[in-house]
Amino acid sequence: MEEGAPESQIEKVMAHLLEKGIKVHRSDGTTRTVLGVIGDASSLDKGLIETFDGVFEVVKVSEPFKLTNRKYKPEGTVVQIDDVRIGGDEVVVMAGPCSAENEQQVYSSAAAVKRAGAKILRGGAFKPRSSPYSFQGLGEAGLRLLRTAANEHNLKLVSEVMDISQIELVEKYVDILQVGARNMQNYTLLRELGRARKPVLLKRGISATIEEWLLSAEYVLAGGNRNVILCERGIRTFESYLRNTLDISAIPVVKKLSHLPIIADPSHGTGRRDKVAPMARAAVAAGADGLLIEVHCDPDKALSDGAQSLFPSQFDQLMAELRTIAPAIGRSICVEPVARRGWAR
Amino acid sequence: MEEGAPESQIEKVMAHLLEKGIKVHRSDGTTRTVLGVIGDASSLDKGLIETFDGVFEVVKVSEPFKLTNRKYKPEGTVVQIDDVRIGGDEVVVMAGPCSAENEQQVYSSAAAVKRAGAKILRGGAFKPRSSPYSFQGLGEAGLRLLRTAANEHNLKLVSEVMDISQIELVEKYVDILQVGARNMQNYTLLRELGRARKPVLLKRGISATIEEWLLSAEYVLAGGNRNVILCERGIRTFESYLRNTLDISAIPVVKKLSHLPIIADPSHGTGRRDKVAPMARAAVAAGADGLLIEVHCDPDKALSDGAQSLFPSQFDQLMAELRTIAPAIGRSICVEPVARRGWAR
Amino acid sequence: MEEGAPESQIEKVMAHLLEKGIKVHRSDGTTRTVLGVIGDASSLDKGLIETFDGVFEVVKVSEPFKLTNRKYKPEGTVVQIDDVRIGGDEVVVMAGPCSAENEQQVYSSAAAVKRAGAKILRGGAFKPRSSPYSFQGLGEAGLRLLRTAANEHNLKLVSEVMDISQIELVEKYVDILQVGARNMQNYTLLRELGRARKPVLLKRGISATIEEWLLSAEYVLAGGNRNVILCERGIRTFESYLRNTLDISAIPVVKKLSHLPIIADPSHGTGRRDKVAPMARAAVAAGADGLLIEVHCDPDKALSDGAQSLFPSQFDQLMAELRTIAPAIGRSICVEPVARRGWAR
Amino acid sequence: MEEGAPESQIEKVMAHLLEKGIKVHRSDGTTRTVLGVIGDASSLDKGLIETFDGVFEVVKVSEPFKLTNRKYKPEGTVVQIDDVRIGGDEVVVMAGPCSAENEQQVYSSAAAVKRAGAKILRGGAFKPRSSPYSFQGLGEAGLRLLRTAANEHNLKLVSEVMDISQIELVEKYVDILQVGARNMQNYTLLRELGRARKPVLLKRGISATIEEWLLSAEYVLAGGNRNVILCERGIRTFESYLRNTLDISAIPVVKKLSHLPIIADPSHGTGRRDKVAPMARAAVAAGADGLLIEVHCDPDKALSDGAQSLFPSQFDQLMAELRTIAPAIGRSICVEPVARRGWAR
Repeated sequence: MEEGAPESQIEKVMAHLLEKGIKVHRSDGTTRTVLGVIGDASSLDKGLIETFDGVFEVVKVSEPFKLTNRKYKPEGTVVQIDDVRIGGDEVVVMAGPCSAENEQQVYSSAAAVKRAGAKILRGGAFKPRSSPYSFQGLGEAGLRLLRTAANEHNLKLVSEVMDISQIELVEKYVDILQVGARNMQNYTLLRELGRARKPVLLKRGISATIEEWLLSAEYVLAGGNRNVILCERGIRTFESYLRNTLDISAIPVVKKLSHLPIIADPSHGTGRRDKVAPMARAAVAAGADGLLIEVHCDPDKALSDGAQSLFPSQFDQLMAELRTIAPAIGRSICVEPVARRGWAR
Repeated sequence: MEEGAPESQIEKVMAHLLEKGIKVHRSDGTTRTVLGVIGDASSLDKGLIETFDGVFEVVKVSEPFKLTNRKYKPEGTVVQIDDVRIGGDEVVVMAGPCSAENEQQVYSSAAAVKRAGAKILRGGAFKPRSSPYSFQGLGEAGLRLLRTAANEHNLKLVSEVMDISQIELVEKYVDILQVGARNMQNYTLLRELGRARKPVLLKRGISATIEEWLLSAEYVLAGGNRNVILCERGIRTFESYLRNTLDISAIPVVKKLSHLPIIADPSHGTGRRDKVAPMARAAVAAGADGLLIEVHCDPDKALSDGAQSLFPSQFDQLMAELRTIAPAIGRSICVEPVARRGWAR
Repeated sequence: MEEGAPESQIEKVMAHLLEKGIKVHRSDGTTRTVLGVIGDASSLDKGLIETFDGVFEVVKVSEPFKLTNRKYKPEGTVVQIDDVRIGGDEVVVMAGPCSAENEQQVYSSAAAVKRAGAKILRGGAFKPRSSPYSFQGLGEAGLRLLRTAANEHNLKLVSEVMDISQIELVEKYVDILQVGARNMQNYTLLRELGRARKPVLLKRGISATIEEWLLSAEYVLAGGNRNVILCERGIRTFESYLRNTLDISAIPVVKKLSHLPIIADPSHGTGRRDKVAPMARAAVAAGADGLLIEVHCDPDKALSDGAQSLFPSQFDQLMAELRTIAPAIGRSICVEPVARRGWAR
Repeated sequence: MEEGAPESQIEKVMAHLLEKGIKVHRSDGTTRTVLGVIGDASSLDKGLIETFDGVFEVVKVSEPFKLTNRKYKPEGTVVQIDDVRIGGDEVVVMAGPCSAENEQQVYSSAAAVKRAGAKILRGGAFKPRSSPYSFQGLGEAGLRLLRTAANEHNLKLVSEVMDISQIELVEKYVDILQVGARNMQNYTLLRELGRARKPVLLKRGISATIEEWLLSAEYVLAGGNRNVILCERGIRTFESYLRNTLDISAIPVVKKLSHLPIIADPSHGTGRRDKVAPMARAAVAAGADGLLIEVHCDPDKALSDGAQSLFPSQFDQLMAELRTIAPAIGRSICVEPVARRGWAR
C-alpha cells in the first residue's frame, strides 16, 4: 500500500482478495502496510488491484508458468526422436532450404546438409508471407518431397504448421511440428498441438518477452505434449541494419528459467548470409542445444529467403568451426558421418 | 551498384533480373551505375540481390501494398453498416466490456454506452489470453448475450474471431469481425476473412510496422472484402510504465498511405483506466475515424481487463470532451441521443 | 526470498542489510519469507542483492526520485518568466527556426510566430549534429540575433546549451536553457545547471524511460534550481516510417508522477512537416502544458530541419485549431495579440 | 520522383540541387524519373527534399561516415599500446572493478585479473549514475590507485572521461580514454578527444544505431585521433529480463562496415553475473577483438555494479573457456602468464 494509506483503503483491498477466495497475510510496518497473498493467485488481476485507491504496487513473487518452469523439472528435458536427442550433450543441427521448391532442389540440399553433419532436415511447405502476392509454398507436394529426401539420407524432418486445419496433414509427414514466430500466440493452434503426438518446435515471436514465450509453451505442455523445443529467431529492435536482432542472451536466460531445450535460428535472426556463421558460433558458445539453419543448393535461385541461405560449402566450414567451439562448454557436435568418406565433394 | 563495380558484376545482376522476366534500365553515372527495374517487381527478392557482389543497395520505389494504397482509391473508404458510417465526417465510438461475462453485466454495460453516445457495442466471447490458466470467454453463449443487448439498444456489434473455425459462428452474431493484434499475421485467417460478407476490424500487431499492417489488410482486400477498418492499439517499446505505447502518429501516417478508415483503442493502448481519456482525446485530435473503448458497469469485478475499463460516468465525461474536440478538425461526434432525456442516471 | 529458502540464506541477506545500516522487518509466511526494508534504501544495490542465494526478487516500493515527485509538491509547479506562466491554465507555445542562420531569417521567423500567438521564441545557436560534416550553428552571433528578435517582438527566448563551457555565455542571452535529448544523461551538465539562475527545459532522451528522465530532472532540482520544464520529443521504436515515435502517453504519465510542467515537441517527434499539426493537437488534447514547434520563414531553404519546419501559414492554422481544443480540457491558449490587427500578412 | 510527377515538380527539385552546387543526372524511365546526385551530397537535407511535391523517396547511395569506413582503410586498424595490440590476432581482455573504491580492492582485483590473463585493467574514477544520490566515484584519488595497481602488474589502464573538463586529468593516468554509452553523442567531448594523444574506447549508446555509432567515431577520427576502439555494451529493447540486450550481431556488422577494432562488454550488456560468461564466449565466437569485463575481489561488497561483477574464480574459468573458443576463428588468447606458476590461489 501507499505510505499513509488509510485503514478503509487497506480493508477494501483485503475484502477484494477474500472475495476471490485468497488468504491474505497483513504486515504493518512503520510507514507502510504490505499485504501478502498466500496460495493460488491465478484468479487475481494485478493491473486491476493497482487501480484501487491506496495501492502502491502489486508484485508477483512467482513466475506465471508452471509446467515449463525449471523448478518443476530441474534436470532438463531431452526431446528424443529415435537416436536424435535434443537437449542432451550433443548440439543438434537442423538444416535445409527455406521452402521445398522442387525435387532436385530438395534432394541436393538434403544431401549437402547430411554430408556436413546435420541430423534433421528443415524445409517449408506452408509459408507465412507478409505479402499475399509472394510464393506461399507447395503444400502437401512439398511435404512429400521433404519426407522422401529425409528418409533417403536418414535425417529427421521438421516443417511448419500454420493452422489447426493443417495439423493432421503435416503430422503425417514430419518428425517435429514447427510453430512460426507469427503464430507464437495463436492459442487455438497451441492448444491443439498439446494433443499432438509429435514434438513441437516453438519459435519466439518477434516481440515476445521470454515470459510470454514460456507461457505459450505452457499451452502445449498443459495440453499433454511435453516435447517442446524452444527456438530463438531474432527480435525486433530499433536497429535496422539486419532484419532482426538475434537475442543470444535469451539462451542462458531460458536455460535458467525452464527445463526445455532451446535452439537458435541465425538465418532468420540476421537475414544475411554473411552473418549466419558468426551468429551460429555465438549461439553454440552461449549454450544453445541446437541450431536451425537455412542451406540451399543454389541460394541465388531460391524462391524465398535466398539472401540468408548458406551455400553448401559455407555450411561445411561452419560445421567445422562449431566442432571446435562445442567442447569449450562441455558439448559435442556430431562427428563427421561415415558415409562422407566415400563422397566426392 | 558499388562505386567501381566491374562490368562482370553489373552483368550478373542484369542477367538475374532478365531471368525473372524484368526489364532493366541501366544508367551509368561518373562514379556509379544504377539499374532501374521497370514493371512488376513482386517476384524479386530484395535481400537476395543485395548479397550479389558489387551491389550497394536495392531500393523499392513503390509501396508493396496495392488495393490498400490511397493512390488506388484517393477519396477514402467509408465502411457503412446501415446508418453507421465509419470513415465519414462523424467520429464513431465503439464501447463495451472486454468480455461478455453474464446477462446483467452485458445488458447494463450496453445501456451505459448507448446512453453516452456510442454507436457500436464491443465485447469478447472468444478471448486470446497469454496464460492457459486465465478466463477464456463464454463462447457462443457470450455472442448471444451481446447480440441481444445490441439489438435492444439499437447498437451495432463488433467481436473477435480467433480462428478460421470460428468465422461462421461469429459472423452469425456480429456486424464487424474483429482480428486481434496477436492474429494480425495469421494469414490463413486473413485469407478466409477476405471471403466474409461482414466488415473486418484489423488491429495492429504489437510490433508490426505500418507497412506490415497494411499488407495484412491487403490479404483481406485481395480476397474480395473491401470493408476493412484499421485499429491502432499500442505498440511495444522499451518504455514499460504503461502496458503499451499508443502510437498516435500512426493515425496521420495511415491516413496518408491508405484510403481505409482508422480508429484507436486507448484501453489496450494504455492498460490503465486513468490514461484512457487523455489518449482518446489525443486520437480524435490527431484525426482518428473512431474509438474502441472498454466500458464496464462494474470494472472492479470484471473477469478481464478491469484495470483499463472505464466506469460509465467516466465514459460520459469523455464523450462530452470529445464533442468539443472533434469540430477543431472538421469532424462531429454523435449528438446526445433523444432517448437519454427521460433516463435517470 | 525463494520458497523454501533455508534460514542460512535469509540470515545472509539480513546481515548484508544490517551492515548497510538498514532496519529490516521480517515476515514469515506459510511458504515464503518476506524481508521489508525500512527507511532510506538509497545505499542498497537491488541487482546485487538479487544475486544472493535464495533471493527471489527485490522490489522497490517507492520511486527513486524525490524532489521531482508529485508527492513532494502535490499542487504542480508553474515556471514563471515575467508574465509567461508555464504549467498554469494557459497552453504556452514556443516556436521559431531550428537554428539561427542569418538576420533576415531570424527576424521574419520571430515576427511570424509572434503574430500567430507564440509567447516564446526558440532557435539554436549551438547544434548537436550526428555527423561532424553538418552545419554546427552560428554560436554567439546566433544568440545575439535571437535575443534581438525576441526583444523586438516581446517574446521570451529558449536555446540549447550543449556543454558546461557554454552555460555562462548562453545564460546571458536566453530566458530558458534547453538541454537536448542527447545530453539528458550528461550529469556534469545537469549538476551545473542546478546552479543556474534561469529555468531549464529538459528534453527526454530518445530511449530514456520516464523514470530516468525524472531522475535527470532530479539532478537539476537537487542542485537548487527548481524551475525545470520537461519536454517529450519522441522516442526510438522499431517503427521507422517517422524519425521518432512521439510518446503522447508520457504526458498524462508525467503529470501524475511529477509536479513539473511538461510540453511536447511534435517537430522532432515526427520529423515531417505534415505530421506536426496532428501531433501538436494530440499533445494539447492529452494535457500538455505547452508546445515547442519549428517554424521557418522559408523552410525549403533551411540549413537544418527544413523537413519538419512549418510554413508561417501552417502555423497560423494550427494555432487556430489549438484554440478550439484547449477548452475541452479546461485550458486556454493565447488569444490573438492586439498587435496583429495593424499588420499586413 | 512519384509516378507521373509533372515536369514542374521535377524542375523544382533540380533547381534546388543546382542551387546547392550539386550536379544532377536525370534518367527518365517509362513510368518514373530518377534524379541522381553526383559528387559531395553532404550539404543536402534528405528529409527536406522528401517534402517537395512529387518526390517519392530520397535514397543515400553511400554511407555518411568516411574515415571510419572500411572502404577507406580495407586492412583493419590495430590500436597498439606498447606490446598490446587490439585488433590483431589476439583477443585482448580488459578487466577489473566497476569503480575504484579503495587501495585493497583495486590492488587485489588487479592481481586477480592479471593472473587470469587480462592485459588491461579497467576501473572507474568518475562514474555517470542515473541518480544524483548514488556513489559518484573517487575522482583523481581513484585514478592514482588504478595507475599504481596497473604498473605493479604490468597492465595497461582504461578509465572513463565524462566531460571535456576531465580530459587533461584522466589522460595523465590512463592508456585508453573511455567514452561511456550516455556520452556517445556528446559531440563537444568527442571533438576534444580528436585532439587527445591516447586511444579512445567508444561505447555504443544504449539506443544508437550502428550508423550513428560510426558517425560518433568519425568525430574523433576527423579531429586527428585515429586510435578508436568500439565497444558494444548492450542496447535497449522491449525485453526487460536482463538490463540490456547485448547485440552480438553488431560485431560482424561493424567488422564489415569499418576498419576499427570492436570489443564487447558482457557485464553491462547483461547486468547479471551468471550471464557474463555465456555472453563473453558468444562475443569471441562472433569475432570480437576483445572483451571488457567487470571483476571484483569481493562483489558482494562492491559500491557499484556488484550484481554483474565476476568473482576472480569465475573469471579464471571463463578465460580457460575462451582459450578453447578463439582458435575456432583463427584467433588466440593470451597464454597463461609465467608469473602465475608460483602463486597460491
